[in-house]
Amino acid sequence: MTIGYESLYSAIVTILVLALYFYMGSVVGRMRGRHNVVAPAVIGHPEFERSFRVHANTMEQLVLFLPLLWLATLLYNGIAWLPALFGLIFLIGRIVYMQIYMSDPQKRGPGILIGMVGVLGLLVLTIIGIVQVWSALSAT
Amino acid sequence: MTIGYESLYSAIVTILVLALYFYMGSVVGRMRGRHNVVAPAVIGHPEFERSFRVHANTMEQLVLFLPLLWLATLLYNGIAWLPALFGLIFLIGRIVYMQIYMSDPQKRGPGILIGMVGVLGLLVLTIIGIVQVWSALSAT
Amino acid sequence: MTIGYESLYSAIVTILVLALYFYMGSVVGRMRGRHNVVAPAVIGHPEFERSFRVHANTMEQLVLFLPLLWLATLLYNGIAWLPALFGLIFLIGRIVYMQIYMSDPQKRGPGILIGMVGVLGLLVLTIIGIVQVWSALSAT
Repeated sequence: MTIGYESLYSAIVTILVLALYFYMGSVVGRMRGRHNVVAPAVIGHPEFERSFRVHANTMEQLVLFLPLLWLATLLYNGIAWLPALFGLIFLIGRIVYMQIYMSDPQKRGPGILIGMVGVLGLLVLTIIGIVQVWSALSAT
Repeated sequence: MTIGYESLYSAIVTILVLALYFYMGSVVGRMRGRHNVVAPAVIGHPEFERSFRVHANTMEQLVLFLPLLWLATLLYNGIAWLPALFGLIFLIGRIVYMQIYMSDPQKRGPGILIGMVGVLGLLVLTIIGIVQVWSALSAT
Repeated sequence: MTIGYESLYSAIVTILVLALYFYMGSVVGRMRGRHNVVAPAVIGHPEFERSFRVHANTMEQLVLFLPLLWLATLLYNGIAWLPALFGLIFLIGRIVYMQIYMSDPQKRGPGILIGMVGVLGLLVLTIIGIVQVWSALSAT
């Protein structure tokens, strides 16, 4: 299989996003220790619960983000770094989300919105890619 | 990389399933507002909890479904639209699940079963595909 | 698309890991019945809660594991069965985790650590693969 630059860029973004996700998981573990929330409990101290929701919500978003990132990367044929760019926007959105949520969950809106821009951008690229591939297959 | 019709069909099904999943997430947000369940809490009003579980359970299923859909699509060599068909069955199962769960969680069985038919079909196609690829590689 | 042995091995490991994950989900269902934890509740009897966390924590790990398994498989060019081997280590880690967690959640450390060895191995292979592909693309 020939792998192009677009896959390379998206692979790097995937690693960065998964590193953030891994970090969020480690914060949950630390908060569990600090506030003595004994497994299997997932409720207890507010700071633990906030870290738990930051991690869980990011997982929920990753199930949306990762398939779209790779569909866009493999189907869309145009600017090689565009899928990865939307991936970076998603990454920034998640960092903002984490920062704000830990201090005040009620203000978490902006982080969600920035992440959503990344996801929607990838959705548009994927749809463009489907049309491109369909046209190419029909033409042969 | 040459992309065939089977990837195109599965890409479209993936987008439809992710759109449903996104919609389920937006219902959770709406229920949070309606019943005043303040983040990071994930328990409170029954209607909120039901919407939360519909979304979470679908995420649990997606972690099973998406890898099998794409393994079947890339490995199985036969009827191009068959992986996507099982994907559509999964999609229908999840819609049925959501509809029933929101009114009466105790009757959620049928939706789970329909979705499982889709997942098991994809598992069978993936295993057939592994045997096909293995035979082809051994023959060269 | 030409599919090599490395994809075949990783496909088999993926199926094994998803089978374990599916089994964990079925245990949650059984515990729900045994201890009469009525949906949408996810807290109640300790044995139910443990099975629920085993399943949920494995899902959290799968979001990390599956993308890295397949990035390593597709990008890394070397020993064909190496990504799948780290995948098997992850699988063993999750089985150990499940076994221990169900009897005593406080001793769950070793299972997490073994699984982490698999994930970190795949991360290293992915990074090596990115460098390999980058070099190959730059040379052309």
